[in-house]
Amino acid sequence: MKSASIISIGNELIHGQGIDTNSQYLAEKLFSMGVEIKAMYSVGDEVDSIVRILNNAVNNSELIFMTGGLGPTDDDVTRHALTAGLGVDLEFHQELLNQINEYFTRRNLTVPRRNKIQAYIPKGSRAIKNVVGTAPGIIGEFDGKLVFSMPGVPAEMHRMFEESVLPEIRRNIEAAERTVIVVRKLKCFGVGESTIAEKLGDMMRRGRNPEINSTAGGGVITLHIIAKAKTEDEAHGMALDDENRLKDILKEIVYGSGDETLAETIGLQLRKRGKTLAVAESCTGGALAESITNAPGSSDYFTYGWVTYSNEAKIKELAVEAELIQKEGAVSEKVALAMAAGAKKKSGAAYSIAITGIAGPAGGSEQKPVGLVYICINGEKHSDLQRFVFPLGRLPMRRRTVNTALNMLRMQLKI
Amino acid sequence: MKSASIISIGNELIHGQGIDTNSQYLAEKLFSMGVEIKAMYSVGDEVDSIVRILNNAVNNSELIFMTGGLGPTDDDVTRHALTAGLGVDLEFHQELLNQINEYFTRRNLTVPRRNKIQAYIPKGSRAIKNVVGTAPGIIGEFDGKLVFSMPGVPAEMHRMFEESVLPEIRRNIEAAERTVIVVRKLKCFGVGESTIAEKLGDMMRRGRNPEINSTAGGGVITLHIIAKAKTEDEAHGMALDDENRLKDILKEIVYGSGDETLAETIGLQLRKRGKTLAVAESCTGGALAESITNAPGSSDYFTYGWVTYSNEAKIKELAVEAELIQKEGAVSEKVALAMAAGAKKKSGAAYSIAITGIAGPAGGSEQKPVGLVYICINGEKHSDLQRFVFPLGRLPMRRRTVNTALNMLRMQLKI
Repeated sequence: MKSASIISIGNELIHGQGIDTNSQYLAEKLFSMGVEIKAMYSVGDEVDSIVRILNNAVNNSELIFMTGGLGPTDDDVTRHALTAGLGVDLEFHQELLNQINEYFTRRNLTVPRRNKIQAYIPKGSRAIKNVVGTAPGIIGEFDGKLVFSMPGVPAEMHRMFEESVLPEIRRNIEAAERTVIVVRKLKCFGVGESTIAEKLGDMMRRGRNPEINSTAGGGVITLHIIAKAKTEDEAHGMALDDENRLKDILKEIVYGSGDETLAETIGLQLRKRGKTLAVAESCTGGALAESITNAPGSSDYFTYGWVTYSNEAKIKELAVEAELIQKEGAVSEKVALAMAAGAKKKSGAAYSIAITGIAGPAGGSEQKPVGLVYICINGEKHSDLQRFVFPLGRLPMRRRTVNTALNMLRMQLKI
Repeated sequence: MKSASIISIGNELIHGQGIDTNSQYLAEKLFSMGVEIKAMYSVGDEVDSIVRILNNAVNNSELIFMTGGLGPTDDDVTRHALTAGLGVDLEFHQELLNQINEYFTRRNLTVPRRNKIQAYIPKGSRAIKNVVGTAPGIIGEFDGKLVFSMPGVPAEMHRMFEESVLPEIRRNIEAAERTVIVVRKLKCFGVGESTIAEKLGDMMRRGRNPEINSTAGGGVITLHIIAKAKTEDEAHGMALDDENRLKDILKEIVYGSGDETLAETIGLQLRKRGKTLAVAESCTGGALAESITNAPGSSDYFTYGWVTYSNEAKIKELAVEAELIQKEGAVSEKVALAMAAGAKKKSGAAYSIAITGIAGPAGGSEQKPVGLVYICINGEKHSDLQRFVFPLGRLPMRRRTVNTALNMLRMQLKI
């Protein structure tokens, strides 16, 4: 098994001003390819510190992945750390400067002088093309170990990793003898982590192969099935067997696999059936529509969304009766039903979802506490209405509400 | 200045299955106390790896903070790594077992046998009381360096750090000569990092005090002003002086300070003026409304939102003429203008924002590429319309578009 280390560079990391999502991204990608991560490091924008950490990583692993510090400013010192570590000089590459110039001219911008530094890479190393930003990546060799240096901006790094770095590592791993790790993920919604752990019992035992772990967020529980074997086929078969066992045990709690979101699951079903969806939301303020439309191609089934944040908007846009709001309150069972009916009628969609609640921190009362929310699904045959209290804080409450609404639609679609 | 390293322990970290918020929490706390973080490490649940990383940290810093691996299960090996590193044995402490038993009995639970391991700490080290969970923390001494080992559950770690570890470090720092660090943040939008660096020139020089760093995301650039002085007052004054200088140089590029978002900035202005806002979005699919309503109290100024994802919705809800869409296309200057006008008229709001574009990955053409977006602000006196191309990928494109739209409204509000 190939071993790797991940180094993220930036003062914002060691000052606690930003969270390092790049290392997690890389760790997950590498782990699922059967690469063993020895350690992950975060270090500031300082040549000596980077060189020290780089040497430590090189001594303990075969592949090293660095992110950050390739920008055009004075505190971007990764290229200098690489030259210091390698004991070589920086070398100017005209074709890299051409790419950088092209990036700016295509956007009708003048080329900032300081970006010229990004056309320099350590002697003997190779550049990796950046199709999204200006900073090329760098592939260098340290004592026979491969060092991949990529930009810190996540969108640039992801694209560069997927298109250029990943294929190179795959070739590298194929060449060596390998133990293959296959990771499959099952996505669950509707119960807590401990309930799932109880249902699975011995299957979640440490050291079992496949190993089964769980992580949780926004009410979604992800089960990671990690199978190890000599061949990809064998590992894949083991993971798949476990996946089927888990599905048998957990039944409708499982809504999908891989990185599938609840919005994607219902999107697939709606598209398959040729049905459309409209939403009317109050306390989630657009988060439900946003979650649905995060999925590419969602215009196939998602047609109308209303963010009726004011009472007036509920009345004018969704034909909720003013009297009803006055009598029952905007956050009530009957208003949720009326919003869903109004959205369905105005859009002509087969399904509508309506949400009304109190996200907080203000606006709660003893009878209607912060975190209270009514969700209504108005479907082809019937309406489902449910009341929840999610006293989680404003943003987690909104996220949990969106997922719960999507899950209610899933249950009505009987996926 | 005291130096520190942070080590987070857990297989979920090196497998990319969880994000390490503990290290960021500790880094921010320590940094604002004037402690210099040398490096942050993440390592799996394996004794040898932990010992190797611990030795590296001890060689390079005076204070070491570890989180994770103190639980009762077989894969919690931090206490074993500490004993291996220190070359001592584990020692049983009856008073720790009493605390653990008390934790369970207070909750009417039977004490799991495996939790007894948590009453063992390396010989010569001290336990730190855990008031939230069962795992006591451990303070050990490695070659005269202090090693603080804390649980990985964030709520337990935060409480232990605040109540027990922080006071101890403060005493430790007070005893030495101390430097106070004050961090202030300025939030900018409208130009790239390199343009800001050019404008600031020498102020962003490495080693300057205050030090000025920048981080970027979604088009928002955050300038971190890090002032070091003997007293809090002095550091605060230095940071404030620089903040004022930066505002003078960058003028309208600066939109706020601290953790303020663009949505919060415009929210403050709208509330102050008693004005309302409505939005009509197509390609951002609710993300603009969501961003605006993330701010607590946004119902004071945000009233109506439309996610007119289909052409029919644009026509029926916003009174965009069907012929116009047919002639110009849904993604066009004129449709953006019509959407903004329709949203303003129907809502009666003082300001409206309309967005129409192509988020991709599909739907682009040579004339109208993926990433193309038209944004229109319909204000009290005039409308602003701008065309952008953000070829960043679906989700980053949506995020950049939302921020750009909010910034256009900010400029019209002349904040």
